[in-house]
Amino acid sequence: MILCDIGNTSYHFLDEQKDYKKDVETFNALSVDEKVYYISVNSNVNAVLEKLDNWIDLSQFIDRKKYYETMGIDRIFAVEAVTNTVIVDAGSAITVDVVKYGNFEGGFIYPGVDAMRQTYKNISPALDYSFNFDLDLDIMPKNSQDAISYGFLKTLYSEVMHHELPVVLTGGNAKELHKIFKNASLNETLIFDGMKQIIKKAILC
Amino acid sequence: MILCDIGNTSYHFLDEQKDYKKDVETFNALSVDEKVYYISVNSNVNAVLEKLDNWIDLSQFIDRKKYYETMGIDRIFAVEAVTNTVIVDAGSAITVDVVKYGNFEGGFIYPGVDAMRQTYKNISPALDYSFNFDLDLDIMPKNSQDAISYGFLKTLYSEVMHHELPVVLTGGNAKELHKIFKNASLNETLIFDGMKQIIKKAILC
Repeated sequence: MILCDIGNTSYHFLDEQKDYKKDVETFNALSVDEKVYYISVNSNVNAVLEKLDNWIDLSQFIDRKKYYETMGIDRIFAVEAVTNTVIVDAGSAITVDVVKYGNFEGGFIYPGVDAMRQTYKNISPALDYSFNFDLDLDIMPKNSQDAISYGFLKTLYSEVMHHELPVVLTGGNAKELHKIFKNASLNETLIFDGMKQIIKKAILC
Repeated sequence: MILCDIGNTSYHFLDEQKDYKKDVETFNALSVDEKVYYISVNSNVNAVLEKLDNWIDLSQFIDRKKYYETMGIDRIFAVEAVTNTVIVDAGSAITVDVVKYGNFEGGFIYPGVDAMRQTYKNISPALDYSFNFDLDLDIMPKNSQDAISYGFLKTLYSEVMHHELPVVLTGGNAKELHKIFKNASLNETLIFDGMKQIIKKAILC
């Protein structure tokens, strides 16, 4: 079974245990003969794939009433993978979704690591620091690097932890955030887990 | 007694109860004959004022050991104005400083309203919304505008409130933030209060 999570820049495949990426610009979906179960946030790719019989769009098996209209399909599949969890998906944005007893409670969007770093730099060259992920969150900062690191990370941490649920980290910056969310679990293939759940529920294989 | 808080773009005067601003580019400090007590974060202006006998730099009367080296003088004077308070100064950046029993505990820097709006817009055109300051912070968002508003505001709110101290709002966006920090007090002349305290302590008048 081949799974594929398609974003704006790449096809992310999971073929049994092996995962790999292909560039959206250069990859030819016609080159795959096997059945591929996919989700995609890329409308150009969608237009191509919907004409191919062996590419099966898993988004059609989602009960969309549980979610909101503009919510990204990748967030929805991460939510489908868990039951009692706060999901922190750290990419260009950090999306935080709360799932209680299998119900999606809602979620919020926070800027990603790179976006936030650029924001501080734009406010003032005096705030052009990389973030200190080894920051002690229990101590109020007394220098500029820690002051922006705390501003970015502790605010997010306080809000996430206040839900009193297990936390799972996923996405490109998950490992960095793990230094702050020390008790969280790391799951870089959470969306694939959600896809497998939906396949099972829809009895597709 | 004339007080003046000088930033990168303007001189902000308080003359008894009247406050007014003058543009840094066009205002001539030599045009003032009275004694002016000032603080300034503007190094160009500093170079001019230190040659004028009637302009008195209040920063010299601060015990800098209580603060950290790169901390802005405007933040320091806001801290000098209070004893048990979290100060939220909402300008191009939002600085949050914690004062307990008259001691500066430390503080952090969060992006300001305009900077954060631009950040979301840069991440994706799908996140180009103004913030909803009427957001109910007790409900997890289920639409994109609320998802970014909550990401910006609730994270800040959770962290500020966790200090369990009275909150005072100041700076250009204080009124907007007051919709979120409903129990906070609003003090748009907090820095001037700090200047008055220092004048009193230094027995300058």
